[in-house]
Order: sequence, then C-alpha cells, then structure tokens
Amino acid sequence: MTVENPLLQFNPALFSRGSSRINASQIRKVFDLAAQRKDPINLSIGQPDFPVPPEVKQAMITAIEQNQTAYTQTQGLYSLRERLAQKLQEENGIRSWSGHDLSPEEIMVSPGVSASLYLLFSIFINPGDEIILVDPYFLMYEGLANYFQAKIHFVRETHLLEDLEKVAHEKIKFFLFSSPSNPTGNIFDEQTLKSIVPVLERYGILAIADEIYEKFDFEKAHVSLASFYPRTITLNGFSKSYALTGMRLGYAAAPRDVVEKMATIQQYTFVCAPQPTQQAGLRAVSVDLSHHIQDYKERRDLIYGLLKDHFTIHKPSGAFYIFPWLKNAGPDTSQKFSQRAVEENVLIVPGNIFTQRPGGFRISFATSREKLEAGAKILVQLANEFA
Amino acid sequence: MTVENPLLQFNPALFSRGSSRINASQIRKVFDLAAQRKDPINLSIGQPDFPVPPEVKQAMITAIEQNQTAYTQTQGLYSLRERLAQKLQEENGIRSWSGHDLSPEEIMVSPGVSASLYLLFSIFINPGDEIILVDPYFLMYEGLANYFQAKIHFVRETHLLEDLEKVAHEKIKFFLFSSPSNPTGNIFDEQTLKSIVPVLERYGILAIADEIYEKFDFEKAHVSLASFYPRTITLNGFSKSYALTGMRLGYAAAPRDVVEKMATIQQYTFVCAPQPTQQAGLRAVSVDLSHHIQDYKERRDLIYGLLKDHFTIHKPSGAFYIFPWLKNAGPDTSQKFSQRAVEENVLIVPGNIFTQRPGGFRISFATSREKLEAGAKILVQLANEFA
Repeated sequence: MTVENPLLQFNPALFSRGSSRINASQIRKVFDLAAQRKDPINLSIGQPDFPVPPEVKQAMITAIEQNQTAYTQTQGLYSLRERLAQKLQEENGIRSWSGHDLSPEEIMVSPGVSASLYLLFSIFINPGDEIILVDPYFLMYEGLANYFQAKIHFVRETHLLEDLEKVAHEKIKFFLFSSPSNPTGNIFDEQTLKSIVPVLERYGILAIADEIYEKFDFEKAHVSLASFYPRTITLNGFSKSYALTGMRLGYAAAPRDVVEKMATIQQYTFVCAPQPTQQAGLRAVSVDLSHHIQDYKERRDLIYGLLKDHFTIHKPSGAFYIFPWLKNAGPDTSQKFSQRAVEENVLIVPGNIFTQRPGGFRISFATSREKLEAGAKILVQLANEFA
Repeated sequence: MTVENPLLQFNPALFSRGSSRINASQIRKVFDLAAQRKDPINLSIGQPDFPVPPEVKQAMITAIEQNQTAYTQTQGLYSLRERLAQKLQEENGIRSWSGHDLSPEEIMVSPGVSASLYLLFSIFINPGDEIILVDPYFLMYEGLANYFQAKIHFVRETHLLEDLEKVAHEKIKFFLFSSPSNPTGNIFDEQTLKSIVPVLERYGILAIADEIYEKFDFEKAHVSLASFYPRTITLNGFSKSYALTGMRLGYAAAPRDVVEKMATIQQYTFVCAPQPTQQAGLRAVSVDLSHHIQDYKERRDLIYGLLKDHFTIHKPSGAFYIFPWLKNAGPDTSQKFSQRAVEENVLIVPGNIFTQRPGGFRISFATSREKLEAGAKILVQLANEFA
C-alpha cells in the first residue's frame, strides 16, 4: 500500500458534529506559547504554587502502600461522602433540599469539579435548553454549554440582580456561577446573594454554585447560596485548595435522584475518582490553609496596587485571579493585548474566553512577588501602548 | 417553607433525554447485592487480585513526594507518550497509519480505557451513525452506543468473518472489539484477524482494537490488528494488568488529527490522567508480569475443567473471565440464573448485559482456587436445576 491509499489517510469528515462544537484552540494557544518560551513571566497558571500539605501527601502514600488502588464505588468512598456531608453542613450551613441533615447519599464524588460540571450538563441539558451564566464565567461553562447545545443568557457580575430580573423565567434549566470566581476573584457576599433569591424562587430556578475556590476568601465574605436557597447544587473540590489539580477530586451536594443519575453517567465516563486521592480528600478536609491564604492576600494587594491606576479593575476578594480591563477597549483587544504581552515574555490569559466583552485579561497571582512585580511593570507599559 | 413546597422537591422531568439512554441498573444491582452479602463467593470482580508491583507503587509514591500532583498536558506527559509509542512499535509491531515510526503526537493518554472509549464515541458518532460490535461485548460499548445514539450491528465472536461480510458497508463509522475479550476471554488469533482484513479494506472501515487485557494471554496468541491493518486505533492501559483500576490510566494510538480532537474533548471532561499514575505507567511498561499470568492460566484451567461438562463454554485464551452458557436457555435465563446464584451466595454477572443472546453469565477467575472450587460446585448444582 502506498501513502496515497485513502485507507492510510484520516478523513476529518469522519468527526462528529458534536465534537466541533468545542473549540479549545485559544486557551491551548497560550499553553503552547508558554511551552516555547524560556523562563517566561508566567501569570497564566490556574493552580496554587505551594506544595501539597504534608499530611495530605502522606494520606495518598499510605493508600498506595496499602494497595488501595482499585476501583471505589462509582459515587465515591462512603467514608469520604460521610465526611463531606458533615463538612458542608457544619462549615457551610448546607442541609438537604427538604431541610434534613445532609446524608452521604446526597454527595457525589467525581474526578474534579470539571467532571461534576460535565455530569450536570449531561443529565440536565437537552439541545436548546436555556441556562444562565455570570459574565465573566469559567471558560468550561461556556464550552460545555456549546457542546450540549444549551442556549446561554449572560448576566453581568456587576449587575447581578438587575440582569437576572431581565432573563429569568420558568424554563431556565439552571443558573450556574462560581464564587469566589474564576476568572475575576469576585465573591458574591451574603447581601448580594440574598437579593437574588426572590427571583430564583419566583421561577423555581435550580442554582449550581461552584465553590472550588472557597478557601481563598480574603475578607471572609464567602457564603454558600445553598444555606439559604435550598434549591441549589453545590460543587466543591480539593484541586485548587490543596495543590492537587492533577489528582482529580471534586464533589457535588445534590438530591439523591440527581446523585443517582450523575453516578449512572459517571459509570460510563469517569468511572470513579482515583482512590488514593479520595483517601487524601478525607484527610484534607481538616487541614488548615490559613497561612497560605494570608500569603495570597498579600500578593493580591501587591498586584492590585501595581495595576489599579492603569486598568479598570474590580479588587478581587477571593481565588487567586485578578481580571484587569483596558480602559480603551475595541474588538479583539483582549487577544491583541495578550499577544503583545507574550512578545514581552509575560503570559496572561486573553479575556475573550471568559467574557462576551472585549479588553479584559486574566492574571493569576499564584506566583512569586518578583514575577508579579516584573510582570506588572510590563503590563503597565503595554497599557500605555493601547491607550 | 414546608416540605410541600415544589422548590424543595426535585422533579425528575428536569432530566435530559440523553441521560435516560444509559441504564446502569443491572450491573449496579450485582454490586449492591454484593455489598449486602457477608463474605460471598465473589466471582464478579473485574480486576486482578494481586497487589500493585512494588516498583510501580514506588513510582507513584516518588511522584507524590516530589509534588508531581499538578495538571499535566491534556494529552499526557510527553515522556510517557514517547515510551508508549516505543512500546507499541516494538512489542506490538504498530506503526503510524502512513507507515512511519509512531510518534508521541500519535499517543493520547486518558484516565482509563473507558475515558478513551468515551472520547472516541464523542468525536466520531452522530445520532444514527452505524457501528459494529462483537457479541459478547464489553458492556460499556453498548452503553456508550446508546448514549450517543449509534445504531449497532452485532457480529458473533464465533462467526466473525461470516457475520462481518453480512453487515459491513461504507457508512460504518467503526468496528470495535476487545481481544483478549471482556467478558469471554476470547483472543482472536492472527489467522482470524487476517481473514477479516479484506472486508475491512473493501469498505475502508475504521477499526478500534481494545487491548486492555493484552498481558493476560495464556497461549501467546494475541496479535494487534493494527500491525497488519493500519486503519486501526489501538487502545490499551494499565488498570487491568497492574492492579491499578482505581488509578485511571489508559491510552490510544491514533492519527494526530484524532489525538488532537480527543484532547479537545478531554480538556472539557477528563482534563488529564492523574499525574502520579502517569509516572507509574512510565515504570509499569517494563515490569514483568509473567509469574502472575502463569498463575491465572492455572486458575483458568481449574475453572474450565470444573464447568466444561455442565455448560457450553469456549475455553478462554486470555483475560481473566470465562463465559459459560446454560445448555437450555430461554428468555431471561441469564438474570434468573444469576439471581439464584446470589441466593446461594455466589456472585456472577448476568450475561444479558454483554450479549443479545440469553443464558450466559460472566465469571472472573481473578480470585482464589478455594473460591473458584466452592463457586463452581454451586453453579453446577444450579445448572442441573435449570436443565
């Protein structure tokens, strides 16, 4: 057979329509550029720069030593679900929808909050179904919405109640948001979240609250929507708080029917979260991270101080992201600005993958003070170039 | 609010149509029954009963100690993909579709072969597309086909060429099979696989060869279809060979365009395989398992000898499963027989989740000789009951 043999060539027409609804090129372009640069000032990384807490490491190592490397139950180890139910109830004031104590049967453990999100889109969304996202949003929300052909209504982070009033109606499948937010670091405080409850109640809207950055809460402003609006599915995980992004562990608190349905789909996709990581999660729940959080708060203050006079910025109260906007933003400015930054050896994530509005970009301050200072200096120079 | 408040009740009408196309109840029923039994004779377990090889354990532990717990590249660590390309080329005689050396860019690492399978269905299948499965099949093949709304043509394991001739045509999206087989332990030898190549070539059919049980090859009969039919995507992994089922590590060898597309979907679902498991995979590729395989071969001989006069059985040449058929099988016999076995404290998996034909069941011989003997005794008694 020769190379001209069509059998030996792959025909892209074979690809499904569904697979072309996700376009991952933009974020991967940043990673590819990062890989090509020698020692860049990398402000694009979405994971903490501190090591895994030693007791969490030890829990994983012990699990491996004891041969706890087999499948677990699809929905996760019972002991872990039991502990997570207790955590959500005690720390977050979350109970079951009907007001009972949260039970392990209302917890679904998955390999990462990304997996939980996938499962929720899969079990709820028919093509054409409507959802509400807060803009700026975590890029995966929009990607999954496109993959499952949901119609998205965007509400502005800065005008939450006002915009929700405009788009809410009975047929909304769910309202999905992250607080603390990736990419802006915004935390919706109790007053703001309580203000939207009447709108959610009016239409019986199911809320999905992604609280993966919960621990990164610099002003103690974080509250769980589920603690006063029970019709909420709460997502959380360990990747971001415990430097375990590559270990894949997240969970959802939801009614039993929902957990059962998520488990069914998980059985045919993710199968289960890695067992040693589940054992680590059981230990991690009680680990104190406050010294790291204090450190991140100081970095937040540093980067905010360096950038605030040169960009439009909402000071983040959580996570480890800050999301500056160019003061004079035309179409494509996000991409152009990020491209210029890369040319100057600073890696940031272009904002257009997180928002419908132009001119923003995401900085992660999960890096050293030196890099933040050096990076900010260059970004400020570029801001003048784009003014 | 009271419990009668509809906001506090979950309405199953919210579930998507897609999510109801997967019905996982039957296999989970077996697991639930298993959980209720005290010390059952469990012949249903789909994972080896030997511990993880010490050098593989050490590789995971070292990775964790060295803080290698973060995200990897979506498609997997480059070093691992490099090693896997080499393994497939040297051990399996697999080259790229166009005949070049396999490159790391043609390897896609995912959290388990289940994940690889999901990605392949996702990137190839539009509703109504046609695929071919060998019956009996791994239950996930049928589950994913239903979820993605593929139309399945079944070909009998025992009449592979004859049945393929009947159902093959230009529009088949892919022909998917496992060899060694879950659930039958069947291995298609070189002669059988070579016999079907003209049919596959005639219609340009894409083959997907699931070789996860490759190491469990008692008669050295296993060959990779891709070594003589290049238009093949080969799947393999570490879960089954190295007792790492809960660690999630599988891989696919496929053209670059396919790997790229799988990576795009993986980015929005699985994200990446756990990093310590990837490090373990790098070590596991060179670990010798022959003493375990010899042990499993002896158990295969034991269970086959005990059952062969009482059931219709094809003697398995690989994996760690045997699939007996009742000699006198009416509709629902699989379920009824398995139910009776559970009542007698023997756990087997009813065959109806693996085949369109009635009267079969799956036994895993990845358990002790004592349990195999005790279980076989009861199954033989039940066979008489059903005669």
